[in-house]
Amino acid sequence: MIQFLSLKKINAKYADELKAACARVIDSGYFILGPELQRFEQAFASFSQAKHCIGLGNGLDALTLILRAWKLQGKIKDGDEVIIQANAYIACVLAITENNLVPVFVEPDANNFNLDPAKIRTAITEKTRVIMPVHLYGRLCEMPEIMAIAAEANLLVLEDASQSHGATLQGKPAGSWGDATGFSFYPSKNLGALADAGAAVTNDDELDKALRALRNYGSFERYNNLYQGVNSRLGEMQAAILSVKLNHFWSEVECRREVAARYLAGITNPAIKLPQWEVREQHTWHLFVVRCSQREALQAHLANHGVESIIHYPKPPYKQQAYEKMNHLSFALNEQLHREVLSIPIDPSMTDEDVETVIEVCNSFSA
Amino acid sequence: MIQFLSLKKINAKYADELKAACARVIDSGYFILGPELQRFEQAFASFSQAKHCIGLGNGLDALTLILRAWKLQGKIKDGDEVIIQANAYIACVLAITENNLVPVFVEPDANNFNLDPAKIRTAITEKTRVIMPVHLYGRLCEMPEIMAIAAEANLLVLEDASQSHGATLQGKPAGSWGDATGFSFYPSKNLGALADAGAAVTNDDELDKALRALRNYGSFERYNNLYQGVNSRLGEMQAAILSVKLNHFWSEVECRREVAARYLAGITNPAIKLPQWEVREQHTWHLFVVRCSQREALQAHLANHGVESIIHYPKPPYKQQAYEKMNHLSFALNEQLHREVLSIPIDPSMTDEDVETVIEVCNSFSA
Ligand SMILES: Cc1ncc(COP(=O)(O)O)c(/C=N/[C@H]2[C@@H](O)[C@@H](C)O[C@H](OP(=O)(O)OP(=O)(O)OC[C@H]3O[C@@H](n4cc(C)c(=O)[nH]c4=O)C[C@@H]3O)[C@@H]2O)c1O
Ligand SMILES: Cc1ncc(COP(=O)(O)O)c(/C=N/[C@H]2[C@@H](O)[C@@H](C)O[C@H](OP(=O)(O)OP(=O)(O)OC[C@H]3O[C@@H](n4cc(C)c(=O)[nH]c4=O)C[C@@H]3O)[C@@H]2O)c1O
Repeated sequence: MIQFLSLKKINAKYADELKAACARVIDSGYFILGPELQRFEQAFASFSQAKHCIGLGNGLDALTLILRAWKLQGKIKDGDEVIIQANAYIACVLAITENNLVPVFVEPDANNFNLDPAKIRTAITEKTRVIMPVHLYGRLCEMPEIMAIAAEANLLVLEDASQSHGATLQGKPAGSWGDATGFSFYPSKNLGALADAGAAVTNDDELDKALRALRNYGSFERYNNLYQGVNSRLGEMQAAILSVKLNHFWSEVECRREVAARYLAGITNPAIKLPQWEVREQHTWHLFVVRCSQREALQAHLANHGVESIIHYPKPPYKQQAYEKMNHLSFALNEQLHREVLSIPIDPSMTDEDVETVIEVCNSFSA
Repeated sequence: MIQFLSLKKINAKYADELKAACARVIDSGYFILGPELQRFEQAFASFSQAKHCIGLGNGLDALTLILRAWKLQGKIKDGDEVIIQANAYIACVLAITENNLVPVFVEPDANNFNLDPAKIRTAITEKTRVIMPVHLYGRLCEMPEIMAIAAEANLLVLEDASQSHGATLQGKPAGSWGDATGFSFYPSKNLGALADAGAAVTNDDELDKALRALRNYGSFERYNNLYQGVNSRLGEMQAAILSVKLNHFWSEVECRREVAARYLAGITNPAIKLPQWEVREQHTWHLFVVRCSQREALQAHLANHGVESIIHYPKPPYKQQAYEKMNHLSFALNEQLHREVLSIPIDPSMTDEDVETVIEVCNSFSA
């Protein structure tokens, strides 16, 4: 059985360090907004080439709170529009609607499944205030062009880099492009905590301050509440764990890259469309997503041969029951993608043999 | 130096168990919505004599999400009023306003600083839908009377038991009275995690289901989103830690009770008003709050003699900048309490000598 991703195996490599991090925090007696968080925030800001990092409860909160801070600062208001690719994860859309903003979906880029700059231009209206590029699978959206459009039209850019920590385009990593960026450290992410966790990064001093208050009931200093805030703090224990994980980040990505290279060379089944990827990008291979017009049959074939796979995601956000009022929306390419995509295992702890098995099973599939 | 509360010392007693719990979760490779959470939820539901417990990200989220679930279920709507004591913690009020509901403050009970049933009756209007008793310091509000008022007026009751896990009145604990209850497991609480954590408890099957979806992006089953939810999950690691803490809960409360008994017998300074407490209640002594008309002088005197103390809380919620539109409100008794209350150390790890010192320093204070 080849699991889609085994955190049990991955963590086993670092078990001693992870346990030592937990023990250190337990012995310190200090659990919220302390030195471990400060250390991780500094390290992650520098990793993302941004001035500030604000540790938060999870990735969804990161996006929600950035938009909320912009509302507090008067940069956006209820009813404003946010342009986002139609194949974004549901959490991206929840962050928008939670703030009484309106998601405006556009067809993704047919090649890389990311936000398509050409589609942004035609979606801009008088109400557009934000572009939200969601860097899916471990690679960046076309940020140079997206930033140019934003500058022209005077729009804010909120990157969602939950799937693309450390991925670069023209040498610049996720988090260094937009006005602010949300990151998830959900355990299965390339940089994953051992619980829910997330962060925002930004170069904007005012936004940094507002987020630090918002995560802490709206207060900068204890018992003085400037804003109507929430509770969304990255705790000391997970911060200490993330510091361990960050040290091993690039060696884990290297393993992912090797698996990807072997898949790209080895999977030759014409029924399976491999991801396309250009050398000017540094892909971190969070997911290895193939396309197949017989996706259900392929997934069953893989399962029958002991290979686990996941569909990211089976249903577009605007077709969810939670968004009944958007259910009439339709994006042909996007819906085709939703019928065809399949994520196959790209786990840094896979053995050569595992990778070989996945390749063979893919190649033995007949549609 | 006698600290207000030293989690370092308290946790030292259980350090091996806590580290073993972390190690077990690390080795399991499973971190979100798994068996540790299920085990803790069952134990805490039974501890609170409620049918369901839903582990959440923190105490504020517990209150916010219960109200949000009631809105989804059509039980309450925007603009409805929630009656709450004027000395509640800011988080209680944030949960109300986050849901576009209106907090209606009433003067607290002059003796126990909790919600005063007599004040509820006169505050009920056509828009009142919820009563929110906040069980401060480790003791319950007058729940028999509050439940009777709620039944008469057909109101929902949301208990906030963040400071009163396990406290009982007439043998019934916090969480077993109202329609739903929010708990915080913030580290300094009587039942504290080693990070932010919280829970809701309820006997209502539908509410239980709604909360399980709301905490998980609004979905019951993966990738199917019924509601516009959030991310607010109590992780496996903190659930395992809380299971350890729950085992030692009553022995810790016993230590608190001994400290309280000694304070009540030993502090004889007429300038310091001691908490009053009736035998029909089981007080869990989360905080030992005294009143003093020269509060700042008392706090300075304690500090000069190496005794740390905290003001819970210096400013009423409606006087916070975050609630500018309520700043004109005024509650004379409540504001007097805010000027006079002081929480002195009631730490289960205090030595007999520490307790003696606090008593002596209190008695040597002259206003
Ligand atoms: C673009 C974008 N924006 C915002 C967000 C929102 O961020 P968060 O609010 O932090 O979730 C996401 C999150 N996105 C995530 C999350 O929302 C998550 C719940 O579901 C998906 O991720 P994924 O499919 O990787 O999650 P999964 O739980 O199925 O785990 C994958 C595999 O990993 C293994 N695993 C997993 C866990 C949790 C474990 O403990 N042990 C283990 O071995 C087994 C599983 O098969 C989403 O892509 C996003 O992709
Ligand atoms: C009625 C009611 N409803 C809802 C809520 C909201 O719940 P949450 O959203 O979970 O916060 C509260 C929370 N109420 C809490 C919290 O919101 C908290 C941030 O502030 C106050 O609590 P407290 O004064 O005990 O907190 P504190 O951080 O000053 O800790 C007290 C002492 O404990 C020690 N300590 C503390 C920490 C964190 C540590 O790591 N190590 C340590 O040794 C040193 C400190 O002197 C509130 O009463 C509430 O009272």
